[in-house]
Amino acid sequence: MPYYIGDVIQDEKKLIARTPEKFRESGIDAQIHARVEGIDPAKGEVALRDGRIFPYDVLVMATGTSAFVPDLPGLDLPGVVSLRNLEDAIAIKTRLKEKNAKRVVAIGGGFIGLEMSEALSAAGIATTIIHKDPLPANRWDAALSKVMLEELKANGVEFVGGASARAIEKGKSAPLRVLTDRGDYEGDLVLLAIGVRPDAGLARATGLKIGSTGAIAVNFSQQTSIANIYAAGDCCESFHRVSRRWVNVPLGDIANKQGRVAGRNIGGRPMTFDGIVGAQSFRLFSLQCAATGLSEKEAVDAGFSPVSNITWGSAMAPALGMRKIGLKLTADRSTGKLLGAQAVGAAGAVGRINALSVALWAGMDLDQIGYLDLAYSPPYSPSWDIIHNAAQALGRLL
Amino acid sequence: MPYYIGDVIQDEKKLIARTPEKFRESGIDAQIHARVEGIDPAKGEVALRDGRIFPYDVLVMATGTSAFVPDLPGLDLPGVVSLRNLEDAIAIKTRLKEKNAKRVVAIGGGFIGLEMSEALSAAGIATTIIHKDPLPANRWDAALSKVMLEELKANGVEFVGGASARAIEKGKSAPLRVLTDRGDYEGDLVLLAIGVRPDAGLARATGLKIGSTGAIAVNFSQQTSIANIYAAGDCCESFHRVSRRWVNVPLGDIANKQGRVAGRNIGGRPMTFDGIVGAQSFRLFSLQCAATGLSEKEAVDAGFSPVSNITWGSAMAPALGMRKIGLKLTADRSTGKLLGAQAVGAAGAVGRINALSVALWAGMDLDQIGYLDLAYSPPYSPSWDIIHNAAQALGRLL
Repeated sequence: MPYYIGDVIQDEKKLIARTPEKFRESGIDAQIHARVEGIDPAKGEVALRDGRIFPYDVLVMATGTSAFVPDLPGLDLPGVVSLRNLEDAIAIKTRLKEKNAKRVVAIGGGFIGLEMSEALSAAGIATTIIHKDPLPANRWDAALSKVMLEELKANGVEFVGGASARAIEKGKSAPLRVLTDRGDYEGDLVLLAIGVRPDAGLARATGLKIGSTGAIAVNFSQQTSIANIYAAGDCCESFHRVSRRWVNVPLGDIANKQGRVAGRNIGGRPMTFDGIVGAQSFRLFSLQCAATGLSEKEAVDAGFSPVSNITWGSAMAPALGMRKIGLKLTADRSTGKLLGAQAVGAAGAVGRINALSVALWAGMDLDQIGYLDLAYSPPYSPSWDIIHNAAQALGRLL
Repeated sequence: MPYYIGDVIQDEKKLIARTPEKFRESGIDAQIHARVEGIDPAKGEVALRDGRIFPYDVLVMATGTSAFVPDLPGLDLPGVVSLRNLEDAIAIKTRLKEKNAKRVVAIGGGFIGLEMSEALSAAGIATTIIHKDPLPANRWDAALSKVMLEELKANGVEFVGGASARAIEKGKSAPLRVLTDRGDYEGDLVLLAIGVRPDAGLARATGLKIGSTGAIAVNFSQQTSIANIYAAGDCCESFHRVSRRWVNVPLGDIANKQGRVAGRNIGGRPMTFDGIVGAQSFRLFSLQCAATGLSEKEAVDAGFSPVSNITWGSAMAPALGMRKIGLKLTADRSTGKLLGAQAVGAAGAVGRINALSVALWAGMDLDQIGYLDLAYSPPYSPSWDIIHNAAQALGRLL
């Protein structure tokens, strides 16, 4: 969504306007902008707020997430927005256009805040990011987050680390001002990007089992605790193959897979969703950022004895030039099995994290990873890839 | 090596001149340009052509490959060259410079010929490629080779397919002329790039077991059939984990791994080289080309019942634009296990082939691959990656 910022507002409005029609064309009775008031699983009925009742044989919960909104004075001021759906994006773009916006203040320096700063920069709008920790993207190793910080600076993004927003009020040089314990920052729009929470209120009210993550608990067929109610997407949990725990990772690719699996089971062609390994990525200007598996903290929480290293290298053979890449690996001290990886680089970070995601899926150890057969060619790696170097170096620390 | 063409001749000459000195600095008694006449494994002696004898406790064969040279009249003309080592590269560059070369005729349209055309183009020199088959890179599916052919044409490389060289003679408009059954082609230099053969003559004369590939047979410790003689690199075989046969794949990354394993075993820290899956890649101008595992033909030869498909897609989410990528998957009909993959694309082909190489290493089937957790982000893939789409589509064909 962040990438749409620019000049396509009209198309998006058309897209939304055409949605009911498209459903009709597919023979689907879609109730757009209909709010569900309650579900009666005993009767098999959904009640809308407008009083209408819809009976069901099978129900799918796909309620997604809600943006987490902090408790701040001034949240109701016009131009204070969060990101959830296409309508939010349209509203943001409309305001940026109307105000001929020069600067946005983003509260939150996680990957959504970072991606937004890039999208806004592409539209000629500067960003100030207010972030509670000293470095962006907390889940990442500080050494890698520092590379992200350099990339932000190189692209004119103002990053205010270790700062807490206290209030939002009207500004002087711009319509809005964010007051923090590290100074005040003004902009045409204030974006709340401090994370999302699974939208499980309706599920809870219906009596569905909610997992310890706060998301809807499901089995491997995407069934909830009530057999004819399924759940898919950001509102429900996934099985993490590395920690072997149920987690809530609100990402679009996982949601797509879960939806497909739910549909297959409902349609009578059974299939299981065999879980995730935590693979994720984002682009930050010219930097690829990607991670998979567990962070060290998550590894400790899951009962492993993690040992980590960071290896710096090039995503191409030195003879051809340097494309800096940093790779952090985390493994279990007792078994040598890979537990997680994080990479940032000018090139090749996503590809390497994908290869390591498959290694995690298969439960490989560092000895295997250190000698994996990868598609070597000078434009894409040295003859020993950074994956090999990192795995061998970490293996020596076990 | 092809990438060095340009203006670094002097540096390379210095590099070669410094080699003996560098060995001395490391305490290694290196005999540069010393030709081995024979090996006496019973006595443990190496005899040089100049009569000197070197005793050994352990010997390593690392004789590499020789360029395959066709039987053509005119091979001895100045400017008819093949590619093996740094000295060859220097000779080529020196001639190109001296002749103020405008065009090179390459005999052979495998990946070395293709890479050379790119390197020459970067140096402002045009290339004509004479190739025996209608499309470049025979081992590749025709649909993917066609994309390579388009890339060659778009970059001004003349590709003469389905042509056999008959002779080389002096040219009229340029120093050399290659006569083929599909016309004659002139250039300042003729490059023989029709493949390499393992250089196993000395090993054979020594009585070492030679594999059915013509390369030196080794075990998982890189030992040859004589226990205190090891072999590593292009001159020896590797175990292919997919075909479960011993093969000869002369690539630099494999050679590096084998060398390390041989060294570990000789040094008393035993280690096995657990084989390859056939991962390889090359760049062709702005095209990434990468493959892994078995081709259909190789799969049939190994006793599998292969079934394949080709999927076309984008290496980024459609909302962000199109970066065309084509992915061929081959799987075994009876088990659904992946056997091989080939990809060409403007981006992301190498990364995807690396992920699939890990899947091959682990012996994954299409059901697993179709739902792998990969690091999704719109700049790097749609939410269903082409890997997922291709694996699911091929799974439906089983």
